[in-house]
Amino acid sequence: MQRILSDHLPTHVGHTVRIAGWVHRRRLLKSVAFLIIRDAAGLAQVVVTDPAVRAELEKLPEETVVEVTATVTANGTAPAGVELTDPTVRPLGPPAVPPPFDLYRPALTASLPTQLDNAPTALRHPSRSAALRVSAAAVAGFRAALDARDFVEVHTPKVVSSSTESGANVFALDWFGRPAYLAQSPQFYKQLMVGVFERVYEVGPVFRAEPHDTVRHLAQYTSLDAELGFVADHSDVMRVLRDTLEGMLGVVGERAAGALATLGVTAPQVPAEIPAVHFTEALTLAGAPADEPDLAPAHERTLGEWALREHGSDFLFVTGYPMAKRPFYTHPDPARPAYSNGFDLLFRGVELVTGGQRLHRHGDYLAALAARGEPVEPYAGYLDAFRHGMPPHGGFAIGLERFVARLVGAANVREVTAFPRDLHRLTP
Amino acid sequence: MQRILSDHLPTHVGHTVRIAGWVHRRRLLKSVAFLIIRDAAGLAQVVVTDPAVRAELEKLPEETVVEVTATVTANGTAPAGVELTDPTVRPLGPPAVPPPFDLYRPALTASLPTQLDNAPTALRHPSRSAALRVSAAAVAGFRAALDARDFVEVHTPKVVSSSTESGANVFALDWFGRPAYLAQSPQFYKQLMVGVFERVYEVGPVFRAEPHDTVRHLAQYTSLDAELGFVADHSDVMRVLRDTLEGMLGVVGERAAGALATLGVTAPQVPAEIPAVHFTEALTLAGAPADEPDLAPAHERTLGEWALREHGSDFLFVTGYPMAKRPFYTHPDPARPAYSNGFDLLFRGVELVTGGQRLHRHGDYLAALAARGEPVEPYAGYLDAFRHGMPPHGGFAIGLERFVARLVGAANVREVTAFPRDLHRLTP
Repeated sequence: MQRILSDHLPTHVGHTVRIAGWVHRRRLLKSVAFLIIRDAAGLAQVVVTDPAVRAELEKLPEETVVEVTATVTANGTAPAGVELTDPTVRPLGPPAVPPPFDLYRPALTASLPTQLDNAPTALRHPSRSAALRVSAAAVAGFRAALDARDFVEVHTPKVVSSSTESGANVFALDWFGRPAYLAQSPQFYKQLMVGVFERVYEVGPVFRAEPHDTVRHLAQYTSLDAELGFVADHSDVMRVLRDTLEGMLGVVGERAAGALATLGVTAPQVPAEIPAVHFTEALTLAGAPADEPDLAPAHERTLGEWALREHGSDFLFVTGYPMAKRPFYTHPDPARPAYSNGFDLLFRGVELVTGGQRLHRHGDYLAALAARGEPVEPYAGYLDAFRHGMPPHGGFAIGLERFVARLVGAANVREVTAFPRDLHRLTP
Repeated sequence: MQRILSDHLPTHVGHTVRIAGWVHRRRLLKSVAFLIIRDAAGLAQVVVTDPAVRAELEKLPEETVVEVTATVTANGTAPAGVELTDPTVRPLGPPAVPPPFDLYRPALTASLPTQLDNAPTALRHPSRSAALRVSAAAVAGFRAALDARDFVEVHTPKVVSSSTESGANVFALDWFGRPAYLAQSPQFYKQLMVGVFERVYEVGPVFRAEPHDTVRHLAQYTSLDAELGFVADHSDVMRVLRDTLEGMLGVVGERAAGALATLGVTAPQVPAEIPAVHFTEALTLAGAPADEPDLAPAHERTLGEWALREHGSDFLFVTGYPMAKRPFYTHPDPARPAYSNGFDLLFRGVELVTGGQRLHRHGDYLAALAARGEPVEPYAGYLDAFRHGMPPHGGFAIGLERFVARLVGAANVREVTAFPRDLHRLTP
């Protein structure tokens, strides 16, 4: 008999079926026992009255993997209106050692560090697995939106001979006796691939040796990177980003509707035009001094509230960040060269995306590095490509874990990451 | 005027359009000049008769990025039946330095090392970019096939505290002062995630410090990993793999039809049932001694020829590899415990996929490590999860670059990898 998933039970009333999953919970009452089975699709209730089956059940603690063959019986008070009766229960492995927290309670009450120490079991809790389902759907939506716009997926090196963004915050490793570094972003490679495909994206791990321990930083996170050529300026990039976000949230709504319901959240609408304010205007709105070179998290929160209040938008673009605070490959605003054609996207008052137009002329790169007093040599292989014809281009990078955390209302990105890596954590 | 791509020109005959791209080739004849523009969609021919435009063109070497505004004119002898006449040509950057090989010739004649040294420009050649388009389509097909079968995409750590497969061939790095390693595979994590979602997949980089220099090994490659629970044995895994390959080749045929045509190849059919031979039978077919513990590349080639001759199949499963040659997490064949429930899939005589059923009982893991004289401690965090209820499960891993190389007939995996990493190569 073919195994069926728990959500198919209602279509089998009156028939004998086989299900399999984890012992989610046992309730051993005086005259009857209830067994709740958890599988990939949800929960199923099994009613046990046979003393022999009950005796067997008493030896199978929570999380034991079992197979249940039983009759599907309608019961208006049971989950989804059906329960399984007259079961035989066969363990598919030895009795489980229950994890150090109860997975059957509505909320995981263990502290976050305890959950992370026991990630393989903690992730089985519906609240944790739901966030990862949202994450998977968001990535699928990212790809679908860009595939539909003729972007080509690329896979680039994660080990590089020099650091991308700056010398700090890189992990060093030994590459067959040579010094090498984990890539902080696919920035250079996605730019080079614009020379090949015009439009590219990559979903992959990036590594930041962040020495500080915050609720929004990880030492490895999943970066959703896109880059496109033949742009007029950064506004073309912002339009693609807007459509990509809409695609991500659309697929989350379709594929992860159950997960959103489990988490009690709804996906926000992306406005047809995301409101945008220039950096100088953002400082004013945030009540910051006019000579601040960057936005602090408190400023971003204030701006997020403003966007919601004034525009009904969960999203806000801040454009024209000062050049001094952006990486050397950033394209300046031709009209106000102290400001950049770079932007951030705030999602509910937190920086979610960084993007912008990049330099595309070889000479501009040399000038930009010289102006910063940085040597050309570490970037030589990358810069060389700009001598061979590169179109005006730009792109963006979305931090997946931050996006999901903001979307589901998790206070810490670690709550929506399967096996986080940070200053302190290298296992499990 | 909105820019259009070259493949849209035939629908604009008689109209003025704007295209943009790279100067693929100039042919400066006496009374007329031909300019071939390359964009993401292909090539377009521009006819230049105006002496002023021609003079401009003489200053724009191959690979310069330009914008052309011109009239679309029908011409049966031109590519796709149209050409652009009466053009204005505007460079979008400085004149390009031509790369050290001609991208406009039908084949890239530079040696592979020269191509790899100049990857950003070499990849612009249609033969190189076509292989990467096939690669992107193959990955899209992998995901689509597994999404349709309720697999959930996961993202797992690429830095781990102990090595997955064995102590050799790992890259060591410094993780905030602690020793750590680049992950050789997501093996343990995908198994743990079967405990959460039952069925999972991951597309991501894996790292092997391979000290040898061959045409089929890379130090970083893209692994297409899948793992599924509640299997009877490895044959359930093989069925999913078969369907996944069909999905991959299906999407390659749909999305990368032009790329396949450029490369002059057709995607093979996946038989409804891929032929399978037991390892012992494979030795006989390959003419190898009966006590060989593994298949050598020459044996695999012979087996590939046999599968094509006897079954008309480009694919062949070899099942039941000796336990001694498989990793400790491999499930033995219950009927013949010296042989495993592990398999390889040969594609045109080369090992493409390794997979099998895994151990799922904690006690079996302890016994397997003890039998090999391996300590438990490095695997403790991973093994612990098996105390908390894991279903019978198995999975497989497809090496993306090998798959694409075999599919397009590339002799070296480096020909189908954008920026390969190996013993000698860490740039670009």
